[in-house]
Amino acid sequence: MNLLNKREIILNALKELLKEGKGGTASVSEIAKKAGIAKGGLYYYFRSKEEVLDALVDREYREISKICTNLVNKSQGTALDKLALLFCSYRASIIDVSINQYLHLPENAAIHQKSLAEILRRISPTISQLIKQGIEENLFICAYPKEYAEIIMSVFTFLLDPTIFQNSEEEYERKLRALADLVEKGLCAPKGSLSFLYDYL
Amino acid sequence: MNLLNKREIILNALKELLKEGKGGTASVSEIAKKAGIAKGGLYYYFRSKEEVLDALVDREYREISKICTNLVNKSQGTALDKLALLFCSYRASIIDVSINQYLHLPENAAIHQKSLAEILRRISPTISQLIKQGIEENLFICAYPKEYAEIIMSVFTFLLDPTIFQNSEEEYERKLRALADLVEKGLCAPKGSLSFLYDYL
Repeated sequence: MNLLNKREIILNALKELLKEGKGGTASVSEIAKKAGIAKGGLYYYFRSKEEVLDALVDREYREISKICTNLVNKSQGTALDKLALLFCSYRASIIDVSINQYLHLPENAAIHQKSLAEILRRISPTISQLIKQGIEENLFICAYPKEYAEIIMSVFTFLLDPTIFQNSEEEYERKLRALADLVEKGLCAPKGSLSFLYDYL
Repeated sequence: MNLLNKREIILNALKELLKEGKGGTASVSEIAKKAGIAKGGLYYYFRSKEEVLDALVDREYREISKICTNLVNKSQGTALDKLALLFCSYRASIIDVSINQYLHLPENAAIHQKSLAEILRRISPTISQLIKQGIEENLFICAYPKEYAEIIMSVFTFLLDPTIFQNSEEEYERKLRALADLVEKGLCAPKGSLSFLYDYL
């Protein structure tokens, strides 16, 4: 068991505890126990439970963005096909993250906020690249691909966060429809071309 | 001194301490001392220092949104005139809030996040109302005034927050220019009509 593996095993242990609904009350000792290592061993990698959570969140979001990016890179489609792929896969992965519920507790607000910023930073470059591809394909007109990408991701990470704003299903869908409407016009794309943003909710 | 006043005096005391740069280390006793009341008296209104900060932030943002809304209501201008007034006044007030620096500490992340959501909730209805006025004045076309308003405010509160994203001055300006460009197209408004979003930075 090398150094890298041990760190990963600790992260997996916390993830497992979170899935079991025991994450909120689990102590450093319990995380270490679950990981099958001594408490002192855990402290070699992390100074506190918060640091374990922080690293776990970072790892999960890194994986999500890797999955999304790989999917896009493998596709031979147009910018619109790839954007549809990206957002469907992004939305599916976000819902799957077992740690989300725990992140939303007030005591984890700092890590939560950091994670929102992190996912925005990781996904935006791919969206920006696809907007540029769309410009080359004469699908879009846009002078600010990077900034448009970040604005779109602000809506996803902040305005659509289920614990920051308690949206009803209908409100949630209207926000996505408004975003599609706004970005279609912004990109000079045909009406309905970004309907993947609100379809299959 | 009635009940309402005492609560306000406590909030003013914390505000004063924050201005003096002593907010981070101030205890409940020190806030009470500054307010000229007994510690027990403070506990009659607030259970902790966090609750005082929470209430102070709430009061400050309520005032900012009141100032912005009053300014808009007094104006006889078009929707564009009023939007310019609103955003200039909003940006000026936000910079002025002495508590901002303190809010950005990790231990205050929960209150910080709540405050971002709060300012979005308070300012969005006025923007939405102005978009509707603009539609009546044949300045704008928009099927989602409420949602557009919230998307605009997501950018201001989240993407442009100086501690969540460390933007250089140039990046900050480009984001505002991109937002103006996007929203002008979204509202079918003339190019440059929302230049007040990035002018006078």
